[in-house]
Amino acid sequence: MAEIRCTQCNQVYPTRGLPFRCASCGGVYDFDGPPNYDPELVERDLPGIWRYRHSFDLFKNAPVISLGEGRTPLIWERLRGLDIGLKMESQNPSGSYKDRATAVLVSQLLSRGTRLAVEDSSGNAGASFAAYAARGRMSARIFVPSTASGPKLRQIEAYGAELRPVLGPRSAAAQEALQEALDGTVYASHAYLPFGLPGIATLSYELMEQLGREPGTVIAPAGHGSLLLGIIRGFESLQRGGLIERQPYYIGVQAKSCAPIWYYFTQGWDAYNAVREGKTIAEGVRVRHPVRLRALREEILPGGGEIIAIDEDEILLAHTDLGKRGISVEPTSALVWSAVQQAIGRVPEPIVLVLSGSGLKYYKPSE
Amino acid sequence: MAEIRCTQCNQVYPTRGLPFRCASCGGVYDFDGPPNYDPELVERDLPGIWRYRHSFDLFKNAPVISLGEGRTPLIWERLRGLDIGLKMESQNPSGSYKDRATAVLVSQLLSRGTRLAVEDSSGNAGASFAAYAARGRMSARIFVPSTASGPKLRQIEAYGAELRPVLGPRSAAAQEALQEALDGTVYASHAYLPFGLPGIATLSYELMEQLGREPGTVIAPAGHGSLLLGIIRGFESLQRGGLIERQPYYIGVQAKSCAPIWYYFTQGWDAYNAVREGKTIAEGVRVRHPVRLRALREEILPGGGEIIAIDEDEILLAHTDLGKRGISVEPTSALVWSAVQQAIGRVPEPIVLVLSGSGLKYYKPSE
Ligand SMILES: [Zn+2]
Ligand SMILES: [Zn+2]
Repeated sequence: MAEIRCTQCNQVYPTRGLPFRCASCGGVYDFDGPPNYDPELVERDLPGIWRYRHSFDLFKNAPVISLGEGRTPLIWERLRGLDIGLKMESQNPSGSYKDRATAVLVSQLLSRGTRLAVEDSSGNAGASFAAYAARGRMSARIFVPSTASGPKLRQIEAYGAELRPVLGPRSAAAQEALQEALDGTVYASHAYLPFGLPGIATLSYELMEQLGREPGTVIAPAGHGSLLLGIIRGFESLQRGGLIERQPYYIGVQAKSCAPIWYYFTQGWDAYNAVREGKTIAEGVRVRHPVRLRALREEILPGGGEIIAIDEDEILLAHTDLGKRGISVEPTSALVWSAVQQAIGRVPEPIVLVLSGSGLKYYKPSE
Repeated sequence: MAEIRCTQCNQVYPTRGLPFRCASCGGVYDFDGPPNYDPELVERDLPGIWRYRHSFDLFKNAPVISLGEGRTPLIWERLRGLDIGLKMESQNPSGSYKDRATAVLVSQLLSRGTRLAVEDSSGNAGASFAAYAARGRMSARIFVPSTASGPKLRQIEAYGAELRPVLGPRSAAAQEALQEALDGTVYASHAYLPFGLPGIATLSYELMEQLGREPGTVIAPAGHGSLLLGIIRGFESLQRGGLIERQPYYIGVQAKSCAPIWYYFTQGWDAYNAVREGKTIAEGVRVRHPVRLRALREEILPGGGEIIAIDEDEILLAHTDLGKRGISVEPTSALVWSAVQQAIGRVPEPIVLVLSGSGLKYYKPSE
């Protein structure tokens, strides 16, 4: 059983309440080890990712909250004579991989009696949280920048969540959510709360089942780092259980306009500190201060993984190219299609790309 | 082996060419029996619906064209003390159940050397065809009413299809496609070409696998009738193979504003002829002349099935209610949620609803 601890002062997560950061020191909470996945304990009759429930380290009385997340297709696309695996996370219920994390997150919140939680995202996390909160009959209040518009907000509203537009930049919306958290409301932060990481780790168990072996290389977008970290944790668990000999080679991909992890990995802290939060069409990874930076460093570097950063025009090209191959994904997902063109030939095979979110949310009316 | 024949003059589908209607008499083509599904012949290593390939009655050299369609979740939602099954066809690759049909359709077209095909839909069929044509490296030309706009057209374009806006009503776009068909281009009509029906029938095999038995009742939207007919064919096949004792009770659902099948089933031909093509938010079933009307009559009525028609305000209410339960679907899919409230208690259980398409395509920017 892995335990949730503050990564700064090592205190165990409290047995009551749902703080998103350590109450003592303000540190980030994380599990102190990979999930304990055991193929023998899979509950085949449970929906979605819940067949791996034994590995979620759930609180007492945490209910099954599922919209059919996970079990996403792995399809193959030819590139320079090689078959590249595409893990279609875009086909999750709310349209992104976040659903794997949110299903567990909402279950955990409900286990401690949460009736209302706040969140601050106009993107995949907000939509996913609104969906699972609705499924769990919990109220969701979501702060979004008042400049955000379009299909994503409509999706959040359709799930019955309360939308609160906030003037100013993205960080102003986060500030409002934070204020409500200080006032005692549960802050359902995907970035800070670690509950969803074992949910994301199910992606790795599925890849094992679908491939019949571990991938040689896994390439995933990296914003806060939860997606990549969850996947790594999954394979760590498989390795610890003796189910694989070695872990895949990991590549995290950022947009060069806002690439703190890449700067940190390639040039160190000074470069990291100088990073600016530039605009990118890869909205899902536009994160200036990645919450899982330290964990990524500790869990990617020993295996010799790497971070790749992609220019805007390359992201656009990759997005268009995927579409013409019949693959409809959000621009953030195009990062991995661009990255694989740099990596192919020099990294272990088979290569699997994680396509994080649906293209459907991205299409705006063309006049 | 089921054969494709003209339903009017009984001629077998030609061994060359890809006519969408009978060349001799203009009749509609259809299979002369249900698919021959055999659980022993399932090819577990093939992607998506292709594990049921043996039941598709494919032409020679038809390739596997898959984007990971099918294997959609079956989740349960509580209604008046009863668990209702929701088959989430909205989670297919292009966002609707059409993908099950299109995968087979495009494969059949490719087997006869098609390099370009035309289609006339600004909705789910158009998007699905554009996606699979791209996957099969076939050119797609899609005629759409020039009044059509928004995310759906962007989706079709993103797949690299050629969009051809046509002035006038929906039927004017169909007229253009028809003209190209007369000029020799392949017309990839979802309504007329029967190739996709065994693809849709896979939905029934999946339900058997997911439930461990046949549903008591299946409720699905009905426009041209292909979705419901494909499902019926699947269960007919299961019954013929001795895998189920009786077929489910079938309910097809239409929008009352345009409900030719409902009028025909409840009041006969005169009522059918008087139907007007009224507007409905359930765009997916706005079909004045359902191609599969005769087949539906012959295959639903003996089992005592029925057609239900829903008022616009009820569709809206049902759509909103689904959203608040965490289920994001297109308004067309809300038909079945409304219909089940009329049927619950008087029809066999378990009841399964087919949620035909994704809500993500439907969200327009809210200013
Ligand atoms: Zn601490
Ligand atoms: Zn004929």
